[in-house]
Amino acid sequence: MTKQIKVKDLLIGGGAPVSVQSMTTTKTTDAKATLAQIERLAEAGCDLVRVALNTPLALDSFQEICERSPLPVVADIHYDPRLALAAIDRGADKIRLNPGNVKDSLKEEIALSAKAKGVPIRIGVNLGSLDPQLEAQYGRTSTAMVYSALQEVKTFDRYGFGDLCISVKASDPKICYDAYKTLHSACAFPLHLGVTEAGAGEDCLAKSYSVLGGLLLEGIGDTIRISMTDDPVKEVAAGLNLLRSLGLRRDYVNVVACPMCGRTEYDIRPIYLALKEAVKEIRHPLNVAVMGCPLNGIGEGKDADFGVALGAKGGILFAHGKQLGEVAHQDVLPSLMALIEEAIHG
Amino acid sequence: MTKQIKVKDLLIGGGAPVSVQSMTTTKTTDAKATLAQIERLAEAGCDLVRVALNTPLALDSFQEICERSPLPVVADIHYDPRLALAAIDRGADKIRLNPGNVKDSLKEEIALSAKAKGVPIRIGVNLGSLDPQLEAQYGRTSTAMVYSALQEVKTFDRYGFGDLCISVKASDPKICYDAYKTLHSACAFPLHLGVTEAGAGEDCLAKSYSVLGGLLLEGIGDTIRISMTDDPVKEVAAGLNLLRSLGLRRDYVNVVACPMCGRTEYDIRPIYLALKEAVKEIRHPLNVAVMGCPLNGIGEGKDADFGVALGAKGGILFAHGKQLGEVAHQDVLPSLMALIEEAIHG
Repeated sequence: MTKQIKVKDLLIGGGAPVSVQSMTTTKTTDAKATLAQIERLAEAGCDLVRVALNTPLALDSFQEICERSPLPVVADIHYDPRLALAAIDRGADKIRLNPGNVKDSLKEEIALSAKAKGVPIRIGVNLGSLDPQLEAQYGRTSTAMVYSALQEVKTFDRYGFGDLCISVKASDPKICYDAYKTLHSACAFPLHLGVTEAGAGEDCLAKSYSVLGGLLLEGIGDTIRISMTDDPVKEVAAGLNLLRSLGLRRDYVNVVACPMCGRTEYDIRPIYLALKEAVKEIRHPLNVAVMGCPLNGIGEGKDADFGVALGAKGGILFAHGKQLGEVAHQDVLPSLMALIEEAIHG
Repeated sequence: MTKQIKVKDLLIGGGAPVSVQSMTTTKTTDAKATLAQIERLAEAGCDLVRVALNTPLALDSFQEICERSPLPVVADIHYDPRLALAAIDRGADKIRLNPGNVKDSLKEEIALSAKAKGVPIRIGVNLGSLDPQLEAQYGRTSTAMVYSALQEVKTFDRYGFGDLCISVKASDPKICYDAYKTLHSACAFPLHLGVTEAGAGEDCLAKSYSVLGGLLLEGIGDTIRISMTDDPVKEVAAGLNLLRSLGLRRDYVNVVACPMCGRTEYDIRPIYLALKEAVKEIRHPLNVAVMGCPLNGIGEGKDADFGVALGAKGGILFAHGKQLGEVAHQDVLPSLMALIEEAIHG
């Protein structure tokens, strides 16, 4: 169990539900555009949003964003530690510091100010922007990232500050995965998971789902961001999809379906797709199975609340592996929807 | 290191490259349609194909499929052990037996026949079709799946047969993942990874990439199938995409890209997408980075063979973190392609 931190009203770690983050791509100097993007992220189910704060020119607008954002706001700080102090002053709910490029000066002031305001700090290590000394000593490795994070923990500990979460991101999935596993065994701070420079599309999903999904299956990870070279709303959709697929968010109808094979007598794909579409807005935990085998289907779908085993002549509806009755092909979808409605509304 | 088995000419386990499998959805009685699908799978990069063999009526056509298939053929056996014997006789390159529904009768004959012909067997356990006795004892759990697999290993060992690989598939990602991890620690047979009844689309990818990707990152897994309620060619594409994204197939150009943020001065997405499209057929191992930050980009992209850091005024080309020169926006793509061509052809 990791420690728990609180970002505005959002709990991270210590058994809290894994939260989904994203980052704005608008100019932070443009409060209107940034707030509009944050509204879209909130609507998509985002729990926490990060904005880059790279210039004092953005401070007024950053303050307005913090005041009006429907989501807790994290200020992303690179290079200039004065901007971290200013961000806390202007209402940031959390600060992200990259120990590879924010040096020790002002860290004591940052720690004191963050403590006074109850603002947690993420130590955000990136393989691409490692501390040069650590890189010289350990190379561009998972070890170097973990050392960098733990060194920064020690720095903040010296100033009596422990309201931290940590990330160790890399573009290489193996280095990234190994770093998080090592870090998890080395400390109890909540971990923010992410693969960096993942690009977009299927290879981005493969890298991010492998690393983040693999770690979550190991019980590691308290908050996630799926980085994409794309509209950040898609990052949120992918993050929620991951959590739902792993059973870490049970607010949806999980539709399982067999892959079909030479035993299949009826193409189940149209019914499967129509059912997924019909239930996609339902925020209720249910499992429904669409199976293409009258012989195996009912047994294989036994863990589902409901299901249908489809054959050449029609379907057999079932609930927890028990047959409910036969149904014609055209009645399968309405019958399943009726069962779902009944389960939700009694 | 797992043991190695040989399926026709394909090596599985013992350090061989992780192979990609799929399964036909055509009727096995229809040799022509099945062979046409296998041709498409081979073209897509599939290494091994499975066909359902559920009736003696399909044996002639199964034999024709084995004789003419460009890929090694696995016969999928449920319920009737006589079909396993017949499949070996008709030229199957490998047999898959589900211990939950193929009972002990004939196993000795199957082992002897498979040994005589050098045909390996996959012990394919599924959570949905567990041996009823084991299910009663252990429930529908990862433990029950592992016990079922190890019990079957013992049965074959009794007949002097050890040319095995094993799978323990479930639709629930956590149960599936845990079963493979336990199995990996309990035996040295090569493991065939897969999540069953995963459906199709993004949730299928989330479940399959999390479990298979997570296991591969742990060093577990010798051959994979991504089950999809879809055209099996898409299973192969997803499988190859996973292996490439994890660096387990280095026969392609890996394009990394930052997710952009409020620091970004230029929308890198069009160049990123155009580059991915331009390199997608190149079977040469290279890393190319498209970064949206003139300040961080070159450092963060240091691991790439080439890259560009894009700003408002143009791009800076770099190789392994060293600047090569500035380039106008419209010249970025041709310049990167020229660098790639040069790297490939000298």
